[in-house]
Amino acid sequence: MSDIPKRVQFNEEGPREGFQFEKVHYPLRQRAALVDRLSDTGLNRIQVASFVSPRAVPTMADAKDLFAAIKPREGVRYTALWLNKRGFESAAAVPQVTLDPRLLFYTTDGFSIRNNNRSAAEMRDEQADWLDLYRERGLELESAYIMTAFGCNFDGDVPLSAVTDLVVWIRDQCTGRGIGLPQIFLADTVGWANPEDIKRRVGAVRELVPEARIGLHLHDTRGLGAANVYAALEMGVDLFDSSVAGLGGCPFAGHGHATAAGNICTEDMVFLCHEMGIETGVDLDKLIDAACYAEEIIGRPLAGRIMHSGSLNQYRN
Amino acid sequence: MSDIPKRVQFNEEGPREGFQFEKVHYPLRQRAALVDRLSDTGLNRIQVASFVSPRAVPTMADAKDLFAAIKPREGVRYTALWLNKRGFESAAAVPQVTLDPRLLFYTTDGFSIRNNNRSAAEMRDEQADWLDLYRERGLELESAYIMTAFGCNFDGDVPLSAVTDLVVWIRDQCTGRGIGLPQIFLADTVGWANPEDIKRRVGAVRELVPEARIGLHLHDTRGLGAANVYAALEMGVDLFDSSVAGLGGCPFAGHGHATAAGNICTEDMVFLCHEMGIETGVDLDKLIDAACYAEEIIGRPLAGRIMHSGSLNQYRN
Repeated sequence: MSDIPKRVQFNEEGPREGFQFEKVHYPLRQRAALVDRLSDTGLNRIQVASFVSPRAVPTMADAKDLFAAIKPREGVRYTALWLNKRGFESAAAVPQVTLDPRLLFYTTDGFSIRNNNRSAAEMRDEQADWLDLYRERGLELESAYIMTAFGCNFDGDVPLSAVTDLVVWIRDQCTGRGIGLPQIFLADTVGWANPEDIKRRVGAVRELVPEARIGLHLHDTRGLGAANVYAALEMGVDLFDSSVAGLGGCPFAGHGHATAAGNICTEDMVFLCHEMGIETGVDLDKLIDAACYAEEIIGRPLAGRIMHSGSLNQYRN
Repeated sequence: MSDIPKRVQFNEEGPREGFQFEKVHYPLRQRAALVDRLSDTGLNRIQVASFVSPRAVPTMADAKDLFAAIKPREGVRYTALWLNKRGFESAAAVPQVTLDPRLLFYTTDGFSIRNNNRSAAEMRDEQADWLDLYRERGLELESAYIMTAFGCNFDGDVPLSAVTDLVVWIRDQCTGRGIGLPQIFLADTVGWANPEDIKRRVGAVRELVPEARIGLHLHDTRGLGAANVYAALEMGVDLFDSSVAGLGGCPFAGHGHATAAGNICTEDMVFLCHEMGIETGVDLDKLIDAACYAEEIIGRPLAGRIMHSGSLNQYRN
């Protein structure tokens, strides 16, 4: 328990993950206003949009305009997602974007082929090209993401060795090029993780790359998000991706208005940290207001909990 | 971590807690069918209804008829809630009810006075009368509940001593009468608990009454339900109250159709246990079906997660 960190960093992904997943193209003015509200909470890193094919993801077609519409706040980094070189160049051309050079790995062919039309091994080898590209541009690698690091809806359970093999590959690539590996993220892309498995995998990865900061990208798909975060905190993990209001859920086909939960909810996890005496730099009540604004935009109840019950500050003062 | 139990017991409270809280009086036939579906999942203890004033809680006015309508399954205990002697006598007169003699304590006057029109100390002293009544009837005490054991919306943070003082009082009453204290429940009635506090309070109570089985009645009001259950499992706790589909949430006044989360969700927590290799005796997929049926009855999206995403069995086979 003494491993629990004193301070935790939340990377906010709601504006990108939340609106990318929606069918509706919400007004740019509202999406920009949400980013601005989030900037005002103390969150210092916000993923705003994706630079991807407008045919594949029409709701992200105005990514450039969205970046131009936000009011950048000093100390806040506004990041973007890209999946190929073209997307990267588009993002790099937008002055408001903070480029965060990252690598992307898959543990299973099932997921990799459906997402990228390439096997996991092909995707892995391609990451070497990205390392070259980042070096050419004078950009330092920031993070490596291992997707479906806990399980895959196509290929089932993912053995720990599938994760550690990738970590070794990444480590060797970085060592061979004389560059560092600042962060390595394990992503529970489709909600397979449980708290014991979090501990096992975080522990195994840390042994292989003790210098890297370990981050987790978790989803609350099956209700274990908070338990998984707590298990990670017990392991000293101090870096999480999350979404305001739990944005990013998938509509549940069978139940009309019901939704399956998406990313872990930023304000619920900030609350968890604060109650445990962990600093986040975030103003919880302001963040709850931003979550309520996100719900207002989307127009249906979102998955976040504390946004519907309120923080404990109202009872303590 | 070696304290994690091999088997966990879930006491299902959805039929009582879920429908007591609703404004609508749902058809008895549907409520009975839900209980029957739950009986078929392997859950072996189901709280069906409250015997309370029909004026105060009109939706529970047909408690007796509801018990008569269910199809009792062997090995399943169907329990009821009562708040005073009249309610107890009504419950005792219904053959389908399994009486579970319990005591009820409050940590704060704020909550106790609003709920019972009596101070916490008055409520405490009254419990001695219940011990006498149970003895007269030849009933053995089963459990003592400490409400608002983590915090109170009226009186704020609850010091640990408020809990331990009550535990000492209960222990001394039982010892003085030469009776046992089989179970003691800490209830997070209004969603104040965090995982570290769970560990602290469970540890402190266990030191005082090492023979008693500790149970937790938790709510997911602020999104920490799963983290709190996991922390409790790490402490060896193997007894939880929970609600199918997370039934029992409070409608959030400001957002129309949105709801604040209620009790921890049985099927999500059964899933947590199974993924950690802990037995529950529950068929998860049948329970998910029951949760979907509960949602169908209520007619709006309920708080449960895995009921909207499905279990992992579909991907593993």
